[in-house]
Amino acid sequence: MPDRWNVAVAGATGAVGNEMLSILAERKFPVAGLRLFASERSVGEVLEFNGRDCQVELLSGDGFEGVDLALFSAGGARSLEFVPRAVEAGAVVVDNTGAFRMDPEVPLVVTEVNPEALESHKGVIANPNCSTMQMVVALKPILDAVGILRVVVSTYQAVSGTGKKAIAELEQQVRALLNFQETEPSVYPHEIAFNCLPHIAEFGDDGYSGEETKLINETRKILGLPDLAITATTVRVPVFHCHSESVNIETERPITANEARALLSAAEGVVVYDSPSHNLYPLARDIAGKDEVYVGRVREDQSVENGLNMWVVADNLRKGAALNSVQIAEVLIAKDLLRVPA
Amino acid sequence: MPDRWNVAVAGATGAVGNEMLSILAERKFPVAGLRLFASERSVGEVLEFNGRDCQVELLSGDGFEGVDLALFSAGGARSLEFVPRAVEAGAVVVDNTGAFRMDPEVPLVVTEVNPEALESHKGVIANPNCSTMQMVVALKPILDAVGILRVVVSTYQAVSGTGKKAIAELEQQVRALLNFQETEPSVYPHEIAFNCLPHIAEFGDDGYSGEETKLINETRKILGLPDLAITATTVRVPVFHCHSESVNIETERPITANEARALLSAAEGVVVYDSPSHNLYPLARDIAGKDEVYVGRVREDQSVENGLNMWVVADNLRKGAALNSVQIAEVLIAKDLLRVPA
Repeated sequence: MPDRWNVAVAGATGAVGNEMLSILAERKFPVAGLRLFASERSVGEVLEFNGRDCQVELLSGDGFEGVDLALFSAGGARSLEFVPRAVEAGAVVVDNTGAFRMDPEVPLVVTEVNPEALESHKGVIANPNCSTMQMVVALKPILDAVGILRVVVSTYQAVSGTGKKAIAELEQQVRALLNFQETEPSVYPHEIAFNCLPHIAEFGDDGYSGEETKLINETRKILGLPDLAITATTVRVPVFHCHSESVNIETERPITANEARALLSAAEGVVVYDSPSHNLYPLARDIAGKDEVYVGRVREDQSVENGLNMWVVADNLRKGAALNSVQIAEVLIAKDLLRVPA
Repeated sequence: MPDRWNVAVAGATGAVGNEMLSILAERKFPVAGLRLFASERSVGEVLEFNGRDCQVELLSGDGFEGVDLALFSAGGARSLEFVPRAVEAGAVVVDNTGAFRMDPEVPLVVTEVNPEALESHKGVIANPNCSTMQMVVALKPILDAVGILRVVVSTYQAVSGTGKKAIAELEQQVRALLNFQETEPSVYPHEIAFNCLPHIAEFGDDGYSGEETKLINETRKILGLPDLAITATTVRVPVFHCHSESVNIETERPITANEARALLSAAEGVVVYDSPSHNLYPLARDIAGKDEVYVGRVREDQSVENGLNMWVVADNLRKGAALNSVQIAEVLIAKDLLRVPA
């Protein structure tokens, strides 16, 4: 087994791609060679990695020869087209798009929750959607201890989840409004500044948005509970970084708020931040840049036999996207699975 | 019965007080004389009403002689002190604070939901909290048609609910941040700009915030369902005007999303705004200044036998506060109840 690996990042110039490079460097991922891919308009850009400059190349089916690990975050259409070619060329792909998440042949993995699913990978591993990721990290310790019957979640999602253009749009709209200028939405269908948009991704015939459907289906797949009762309302809010979630849980067996806090405190990747009388609870502004999923406002819900409410905040670009992709690669290395099976 | 009435507004210079004056004028409320009361620092200010200037007087127990209707929105402590004195002086009080809402002797009224409760008033009528108000208007038609077993609500509340200082604080923080300046929160315990604060009003020992407890208790009282299963998570978001709510309902008997939309469309004070495939759903920015409660994103929730999700938006200063107070007064007049019973 090599001790360093050739890594490619597809979508390197996007918000998640940038974060992937930071995280690979921060965690001293054993990178031998690095190749950066993006769409035409970014070709020729130069990004720094570990003090060395690295030029952005055009993402195409070619270029994956010799690559051990390819981290994809360049949109679902590009993943559908190029991920199979990367795997053919011998790269193991961790894909951060929706392209393969619900494919029964593809493991959908959150490293703290279902790392065992990696063992059956056939070259592609899917990284869940950001809003799903942070919730399942917080649900897993509760599930293991007392079982979960139903989840009702409402989200408060940051614009960085949409990408760099959305970050710029929020800033530009806020600036314009404060200067009494008109603004015209372009990334979102309506103004996001000082507004809440209950619309993330396309709507289905059942009235659920794409984000809501992902949150429901991906949670079931990751937790291995295909029939889990779960419903979601996903909302974009005028926040730059970090998704917050109001999560209501009905458990199978009783659990107190104190017991839940203790379980969560002991869980990998979770930080409990819960002392409301001292104004302490997780806040998007504080959690930006943090790796863990933060949980607070843990309360018993008396409206069902065994109910819990909690408030879950995480950096959607880190644990919600780039960090988990890199953590998946780390587990693949640790388990000697960073190869495409014959 | 007189055809014009002497009206007093206590807390006239606040965000809700200002809105009360606008609404009295807009709705051509039959005002004979108008007296404006506020705390010391506003005494002497002059506000316009129907083209006439009106000077602000000090709120004290005196000054309510000859007043038929007193609209109070000057904080709970002032209501506790001065409402009984206003009633003694012969004024019927519609109180917009939390001071008397849960008093079993005081009707808590939303005009579209339980106007009949006004009949037993003893001089004081309580106006519900803003987050409760808009939700019960949307719940009532569902309750009447198919019964309600449980409600799980998460809110997205505007800063105007806190008052004028909070509006200024959001603007000032956003401006500072966009200019790379430090900001120091003062109205809220943490920065509200580009953040979500799961903290509205003081926390109780059970971990619920004051706003959550109000939402639970007031909903039960207004709907006349003292044992209704209901839980809430209330969150302040960086929005100037209008509260949005993600409301999950478990009904007693089945109801489709289409049936719910039809019921809501026919209900007084409700506007259905629900065509997600055309990007049409209620938005805080659009609803500001509107009188009705707007409902959209109505969807069946498959995670319980009879479940519904909906997204409810209303102007928290209008229907959520000032408008309902004035509507209560209008019903009192229509029912010949605008007098303190002997």
